[in-house]
Amino acid sequence: MIPAPYLLYIGNETDPLSVKTSRGLAYWRPQACLGQYRSSASAISLGLPDLTFAEAVQRGARTLVLGVANAGGVMSPTLVSDAVAALDAGLNLASGLHARLRDQPEIRAAAAAKHRELFDVREPPQRLPIGTGYRRPGRRLLTVGTDCSVGKMYTTLAIERRMRELGTAADFRATGQTGILIAGSGVPVDAVVADFIAGSVEQLAPARRDGGWDLIEGQGSLFHPSFAGVSLGLLHGAQPDVIVLCHEPGREHMRGLPGRKLPPLAVCLQANLEAARLTSPEVVCAGVALNTASLSEADARRVCSEVSQSLGMPCQDPVRDGVSRIVDRVLSFDIEGVA
Amino acid sequence: MIPAPYLLYIGNETDPLSVKTSRGLAYWRPQACLGQYRSSASAISLGLPDLTFAEAVQRGARTLVLGVANAGGVMSPTLVSDAVAALDAGLNLASGLHARLRDQPEIRAAAAAKHRELFDVREPPQRLPIGTGYRRPGRRLLTVGTDCSVGKMYTTLAIERRMRELGTAADFRATGQTGILIAGSGVPVDAVVADFIAGSVEQLAPARRDGGWDLIEGQGSLFHPSFAGVSLGLLHGAQPDVIVLCHEPGREHMRGLPGRKLPPLAVCLQANLEAARLTSPEVVCAGVALNTASLSEADARRVCSEVSQSLGMPCQDPVRDGVSRIVDRVLSFDIEGVA
Repeated sequence: MIPAPYLLYIGNETDPLSVKTSRGLAYWRPQACLGQYRSSASAISLGLPDLTFAEAVQRGARTLVLGVANAGGVMSPTLVSDAVAALDAGLNLASGLHARLRDQPEIRAAAAAKHRELFDVREPPQRLPIGTGYRRPGRRLLTVGTDCSVGKMYTTLAIERRMRELGTAADFRATGQTGILIAGSGVPVDAVVADFIAGSVEQLAPARRDGGWDLIEGQGSLFHPSFAGVSLGLLHGAQPDVIVLCHEPGREHMRGLPGRKLPPLAVCLQANLEAARLTSPEVVCAGVALNTASLSEADARRVCSEVSQSLGMPCQDPVRDGVSRIVDRVLSFDIEGVA
Repeated sequence: MIPAPYLLYIGNETDPLSVKTSRGLAYWRPQACLGQYRSSASAISLGLPDLTFAEAVQRGARTLVLGVANAGGVMSPTLVSDAVAALDAGLNLASGLHARLRDQPEIRAAAAAKHRELFDVREPPQRLPIGTGYRRPGRRLLTVGTDCSVGKMYTTLAIERRMRELGTAADFRATGQTGILIAGSGVPVDAVVADFIAGSVEQLAPARRDGGWDLIEGQGSLFHPSFAGVSLGLLHGAQPDVIVLCHEPGREHMRGLPGRKLPPLAVCLQANLEAARLTSPEVVCAGVALNTASLSEADARRVCSEVSQSLGMPCQDPVRDGVSRIVDRVLSFDIEGVA
């Protein structure tokens, strides 16, 4: 677990996309985000208090989160010296960068000297188990998608929030870097060694007996020719009782692959259910979550309504409408949750 | 490429299973195996000449192959000192062990001093590409299976041998440690980082324009809950024109998973064809290869005949019968081989 609360590092970043991870953290875990660290007033603001490392420590911050995505994934000298200063001030470090904190000699030395911890969230855990597919107790939901980056993390977190509002025990289980920083723990499933994909997810959402839900963040798509292996191993390891299908209407092609069309929703849904049955024979789909950011309000309503009618299940845009109807359907299923 | 010819290391091994990899090498690449190195006369013999390291070098050997599987995957002090002696004598080293050659300080030092190369065949290559699924020229065949260890490597190598007998250009593309040692190159696909499974196979069997075949060794099974992600990424990356289904009749459960039944052949075949169509829309199955080692001659014939009739395609045991009818069917297909 990454110790909270956090100070979010912005540095000199002026490109909104480069602080996507920090923004996700500020949105989904506001109570965990004490402030932001900016090197200049022209850098992007997430609307949090600007704090120095010393001020953040004084207010109780435990970890500086390097939730920035810089070109090439390397750590600039400025970033390294800021990181060392944060360690010296008493903060731990968490990073979602490609370059590893522990591969930077100055950072490693400062962390050792100050007995601080370094969290590289793209680094998978050591000694993962091989999956077994044996039934385990618990209630599990997995988001699946027609493509990468269609809103699976957002949808999963929205379902967690809604279930908790309803008094249902529910925990988001992160499988990507932003999700891991938001949750404070998780497994970067696309970074594990191929033999351990399913096993890593069995470990992430193990047997559970309190009646609560594990809500597992999906990755990729069974129809993405670059990453489908990750999605299938994740599906088998998750052993979901319920899946929720995520999609962005109007997307011209699979992410990163011009010319490669997205699968029809019904085809994608059936393929996921069929594959999931290997480890979860009674799996059902509770609904569809659409990212309609590119559509007008009227078009978004029309598309949601059409999808809902054609597939016979709730369809909502989690950002515009929340996920209450999808969650109501999840909770209406008679899921035993025992193996 | 691992430089041939090879000297095969047996050491003191007395368990036939522990020299499985060396035996495969001696069987499939006899012309590449000059001899064996045994520490005692009671060790297993592969029927090759017993040579010292110096004798092997004198006869032209380039690489000592540590094709032994010892308990725990660690390197014993004897193994390490033998490896150092081989380097000193002028041999390169190739290993299929879990423990890495380059993690042994004495071995690394001796290799550096003598300018010899170390090949850890379980170590995936650096800088793998992300797969794209775009059509590439070439003729490609992939073996798929109902389970792990049902004869996919043997079948693929038997198809290579038969095609070459017929004068057809064909190259085995290895995806597992034994296969890599046999071929002298390949990618240990179950050891690559999950995001790169498909990409690693696209690199292993890239665009090919000479009209010849790439024969890709399959791994695992779409129906094995531990490893299906590997199998799916391999299927997409292989982009096969033709698949051959491998199976061992009578197996009680999926490998390593008591209680988990194997899928019916027809179900397994359809699932593989359907998944393969994502990157190879016209994919077909040329036949079924059965490992009937546990059956009597009569039972083996009966089972092959039944499978052949029910699926409408050739079915052979590659060990008992070879693969000539399967290969005839492969070559009867009208496969353009251009993207």
